[in-house]
Amino acid sequence: MKNYRLTISYDGTRYHGWEYKKNVDTIQGKLEQVLGRLCDGEVKLIGAGRTDAGVHAQAMVANVHMDVEKTPEQIRDYMNRYLPDDIAITEAKEVSPRFHARYNAISKIYCYTCYDGPAKPVFQRRYVAVLEKTIDIKRMRAAAEYLIGEHDFKSFCGNSKMKKSTVRTIYSVEIERKGGYVTMQFHGNGFLQNMVRILCGTLIEVGYGRLKAEQMPEIMASLDRQMAGPTAPAQGLCLVEIYY
Amino acid sequence: MKNYRLTISYDGTRYHGWEYKKNVDTIQGKLEQVLGRLCDGEVKLIGAGRTDAGVHAQAMVANVHMDVEKTPEQIRDYMNRYLPDDIAITEAKEVSPRFHARYNAISKIYCYTCYDGPAKPVFQRRYVAVLEKTIDIKRMRAAAEYLIGEHDFKSFCGNSKMKKSTVRTIYSVEIERKGGYVTMQFHGNGFLQNMVRILCGTLIEVGYGRLKAEQMPEIMASLDRQMAGPTAPAQGLCLVEIYY
Repeated sequence: MKNYRLTISYDGTRYHGWEYKKNVDTIQGKLEQVLGRLCDGEVKLIGAGRTDAGVHAQAMVANVHMDVEKTPEQIRDYMNRYLPDDIAITEAKEVSPRFHARYNAISKIYCYTCYDGPAKPVFQRRYVAVLEKTIDIKRMRAAAEYLIGEHDFKSFCGNSKMKKSTVRTIYSVEIERKGGYVTMQFHGNGFLQNMVRILCGTLIEVGYGRLKAEQMPEIMASLDRQMAGPTAPAQGLCLVEIYY
Repeated sequence: MKNYRLTISYDGTRYHGWEYKKNVDTIQGKLEQVLGRLCDGEVKLIGAGRTDAGVHAQAMVANVHMDVEKTPEQIRDYMNRYLPDDIAITEAKEVSPRFHARYNAISKIYCYTCYDGPAKPVFQRRYVAVLEKTIDIKRMRAAAEYLIGEHDFKSFCGNSKMKKSTVRTIYSVEIERKGGYVTMQFHGNGFLQNMVRILCGTLIEVGYGRLKAEQMPEIMASLDRQMAGPTAPAQGLCLVEIYY
């Protein structure tokens, strides 16, 4: 069977996350449904990771083993025709049979967008979290510095029963402001469940002045979820890119 | 009474256009409802113009005469709190009693966005028109050249019973491509009903190769709506700016 790599863009608003679940709409479920129609049989899509309910992706990567008499471009066009408006295949290509979207992923970029301006983000409203007051990005950048490198991120893990290692490496955190929009972009070798959202929730607390940048090492060292800030709303988060 | 100038941003998807109509949702209707609550009485909002059902605005301008014991910032914040998510006041300020949003408008900028790429515009899907095939913007730019200047745009007017002058001046038409997204930006001293959408529908026909750029003068001179292209879908159109 051939192995196809798909790059997928989706607006997660309407979905119960990436991962297939019975009786509810999920991204993987929608994609497998259309792939099943294409192959006239059941297919299993392997995603690079799972995104939470309401989280978006510019370029999720997945692979699928299947036999179908179509070129990758025809597969892309077929899928885009039958997928709903809020899911698109931006690229389909045939790859080595050994390519595995999850195991081969080296690093990922996530971007979180929030808005603290005086108006409302009318056109971006599904993709940003509206904050209650303005945030100071200088303080947030100072706090983010402590996150860079290899650390145990257990304090920022949403799964309290996580048995595997909670050590991850963050290569960079870039915090930028454009008018009322503040973006926090994270590049790391992997992220724990809810990790980006908890990191953002914590950085926003620093931005508000409720936490100090200097408290970050202490929060991290505690390995205690209770010490970190709240989980920022899903709608502000977008999986931007996956490196292989 | 004081005169306030409001700058309004809206996603027109859910609305039956700008202008107040009984029993249906309109932008003016929603705004007057919140202003009425603010003033505890009826108020009449004067918009710079009307946008069709489904058309968006980054910066519509309107003015309203009212007496209220609030600063312009407080008016803005009050309105943003009570307006739905898809309408926002980006600025409120007190202006001269003589300021009239429609009569004083000197020129307007509209931007039309379409998509002709191989994927689908997932995040922009409410704000772009998806085309059936790719368009050639060089041909479209050549056609747009003929539109510049003062002309009778009757061929591009959606109101067949228009009794007033159909002469307008277009200062510039800028056509740009970014990946699969093509934008057409029009700056003019005023636009007839559906004029921008008919101009875009015609330019898209040129982009497809179904019309030639050189046919534009003939279409314009005919003063016949039937000679021009179709009215492009409302969702791609956005009122960008109004100059006073």
